[in-house]
Amino acid sequence: MDFVKIKELYREQEKFLGQKITVGGWVRSVRGSKAFGFIVLNDGTFFEPLQIVYHDTLDNFGEVSKLNVGAAVIITGTLVATPEAKQPFEIQADTVEIEGASAPDYPLQKKRHTFEYLRTIAHLRPRTNTFQAVFRIRSLTAYAIHKFFQERGFVYVHTPLITGSDAEGAGEMFRVTTLDMENLPRTEEGRVDFHEDFFGKETNLTVSGQLNGEAYAQAFRDIYTFGPTFRAENSNTTRHAAEFWMIEPEMAFADLEENMNVAEAMLKYVIGYVLEEALEEMNFFNTFVDKGLLDRLNHVRNSEFVRITYTEAVELLEKNNQNFEYPVSWGSDLQTEHERYLTEEIFKKPVFVTNYPKEIKSFYMKQNPDGKTVAAVDCLVPGIGEIIGGSQREDDYEKLLARMDQLGLNRADYEFYLDLRKYGSTRHSGFGLGFERCIMYLTGMSNIRDVIPFPRTVNNCEL
Amino acid sequence: MDFVKIKELYREQEKFLGQKITVGGWVRSVRGSKAFGFIVLNDGTFFEPLQIVYHDTLDNFGEVSKLNVGAAVIITGTLVATPEAKQPFEIQADTVEIEGASAPDYPLQKKRHTFEYLRTIAHLRPRTNTFQAVFRIRSLTAYAIHKFFQERGFVYVHTPLITGSDAEGAGEMFRVTTLDMENLPRTEEGRVDFHEDFFGKETNLTVSGQLNGEAYAQAFRDIYTFGPTFRAENSNTTRHAAEFWMIEPEMAFADLEENMNVAEAMLKYVIGYVLEEALEEMNFFNTFVDKGLLDRLNHVRNSEFVRITYTEAVELLEKNNQNFEYPVSWGSDLQTEHERYLTEEIFKKPVFVTNYPKEIKSFYMKQNPDGKTVAAVDCLVPGIGEIIGGSQREDDYEKLLARMDQLGLNRADYEFYLDLRKYGSTRHSGFGLGFERCIMYLTGMSNIRDVIPFPRTVNNCEL
Repeated sequence: MDFVKIKELYREQEKFLGQKITVGGWVRSVRGSKAFGFIVLNDGTFFEPLQIVYHDTLDNFGEVSKLNVGAAVIITGTLVATPEAKQPFEIQADTVEIEGASAPDYPLQKKRHTFEYLRTIAHLRPRTNTFQAVFRIRSLTAYAIHKFFQERGFVYVHTPLITGSDAEGAGEMFRVTTLDMENLPRTEEGRVDFHEDFFGKETNLTVSGQLNGEAYAQAFRDIYTFGPTFRAENSNTTRHAAEFWMIEPEMAFADLEENMNVAEAMLKYVIGYVLEEALEEMNFFNTFVDKGLLDRLNHVRNSEFVRITYTEAVELLEKNNQNFEYPVSWGSDLQTEHERYLTEEIFKKPVFVTNYPKEIKSFYMKQNPDGKTVAAVDCLVPGIGEIIGGSQREDDYEKLLARMDQLGLNRADYEFYLDLRKYGSTRHSGFGLGFERCIMYLTGMSNIRDVIPFPRTVNNCEL
Repeated sequence: MDFVKIKELYREQEKFLGQKITVGGWVRSVRGSKAFGFIVLNDGTFFEPLQIVYHDTLDNFGEVSKLNVGAAVIITGTLVATPEAKQPFEIQADTVEIEGASAPDYPLQKKRHTFEYLRTIAHLRPRTNTFQAVFRIRSLTAYAIHKFFQERGFVYVHTPLITGSDAEGAGEMFRVTTLDMENLPRTEEGRVDFHEDFFGKETNLTVSGQLNGEAYAQAFRDIYTFGPTFRAENSNTTRHAAEFWMIEPEMAFADLEENMNVAEAMLKYVIGYVLEEALEEMNFFNTFVDKGLLDRLNHVRNSEFVRITYTEAVELLEKNNQNFEYPVSWGSDLQTEHERYLTEEIFKKPVFVTNYPKEIKSFYMKQNPDGKTVAAVDCLVPGIGEIIGGSQREDDYEKLLARMDQLGLNRADYEFYLDLRKYGSTRHSGFGLGFERCIMYLTGMSNIRDVIPFPRTVNNCEL
């Protein structure tokens, strides 16, 4: 059957006006009177629904008028313009075929449901306006990110999910095993014998693809990862999920400035893409979820991001210490309240903060000549605080090794990573963008559970 | 620093000829004589390398001549055309800055290495010609798949990796846990107490996103997944990996014909994309890895795929039963030898085989009116056999339930899946494409370990 999609009607209405067409979709509402009725139909391809007018000339007129919300129908009729109405056009139906009825206990009735309730029906919530919008934005954003990097020649690398090292040290990990947990094999000493496990050793789910990504940057120059990552943190907050997606570009021959240039260009590109491709959805968020969202995004898109050092940031923040829950001083990590104060109050636009004290940053970040700081960078945006974290990487074999020894890291776990500094090392940089945080930022949604199709959090792994 | 990329030189050479430019990359070889020398440089952006000529006017002439393979250098000089040489141009170097030397024990010397050996240095192998080509094709193919679906309005859905059900039944699964395996909590009955586990129950890594994907197709009409999947099968073959990526489109209001149309269009699109975007790499594979590859792919791209039923296929195959290791008869599953005979010998092009006996296919496939077959489809291609498997899905609540009961499936595990048939069910279809199998098909590489950056297989989880 040749279906026309509702998106096509909205985008190319001239092509279809006056034509006989067939659409298939799901009923959002039905209002039937004695002689005629209206169906509001959504087919999943477009945010705005389509109005259908039907008359008692239909064979199944009575049946159609009794359709429940959520029913699937196939409608053939003529598209006519409705210049007087709030919708631009409607279909005058010749036939309304019932593809699949909707049982009377359908949970999504016309009334408004809370996000909490909708989380309990994760398989049905994408049929609501809010989640149609969220998950279309999620899809478009993912594509915008690929497009941004591919158009710049970056190579997309699938770094592994199951890892034999717990080397990344970025958080608590999930164990992966095929051992029979009711009947674990034991070594002579009575410990679990992981030699019997699938991989012949202990394995976990990855917390970052960065180290593997760096190996590929040293071959392809510019690469990015985009894949799932896992944290087994027992944090029941609106910002933590056990399973989420990350984007981690890594660039050889790139210093911290270049790193910031790419991060800034990427954010602007993504904002521009969703505003162009999904203006209906973005207007919805701006109206119903987060008033001021569009202003904020447009401002970010058109601003030159501020670049200051951590030391400068601390000087600015100290002047406001009496108003912070946690006063700032040089050496302390910046809290969300500080980050937001910088980006929302002081600069009123995105801010890159660079060169953090080495003690509060990761071992692999490039040590600056001052001996105190590393070439780290965080990108802070209004409304959210930190959205990107990155650094120039330590490319000097001896310095990296010394830092690893200082921190008590096990050299054997990092052999391959050290090799990259031994064979054709380059200045190189990269950053990480948490994909869900990006979606929250773009939509104004405030709970990470509402931007992941089937979220996984502490004590929650449904469907 | 403003670097020009080697890809830019090859693609827009006029822009740079006669100009002073800077390139950064890794040394593939150095040949120095008394007064001058040549560097062959790769910067990861393009398959073909760049030749650099340097002279004893360099301050560090001696040092440069002694550079080891793999060293990173930054070269500034003038691009000049070399119409007499095999390469189109070269750089006459003013300076050669050594960014990072390469230690004498660098494992990738100029000689040829076996794929087996290169697997042991997965962090360095992307620096070789073969793996540069493989992993650039992998990146481009991933993007081509996104582009294909996004341009057709499909919504990209991230289905979950950690799953609380073992419902998919497509293979053995990896357990995911945060329990302390040396000290497992026990219930009163002495069994492992998974209530204490991170998610409060037993969880595994997914083997397919299809069932979750169907929920989203019933909201967005056309969706696709593209993410990692896991199989804990103890198969040490050239075609099995424990961790691999899958693409699973799912389309509401689509029957089996439409499913085949999309699968065929997708394969042709992807082949076209890599041939246009990476001809150098594809020529390399055609010459050094799989002679005949380009002919085969071009043939597929330009063929109309054959569509026959399983019953017709069996009739054709039975005529050749004396030559098969496993003779065919109606009801038996097709082996690779049969699939390849159909696509390579009988039709000499891709073949869709439809309507398989229900006993050899999954419970969710739509039951045909004959009572014996289901609306399944496999796509067979020359050189590989099955590359895609899919079906129209059973959309009738009662029929699906009856089939589940027949097979002894636990209804409670499928509540959400049954809901989709209860509330606005539609005819719908989908298929799965194993991404690695697709890359093997496009490159001619014959071992799955050689198309995954850091492969995970039985007893192997390195780096």
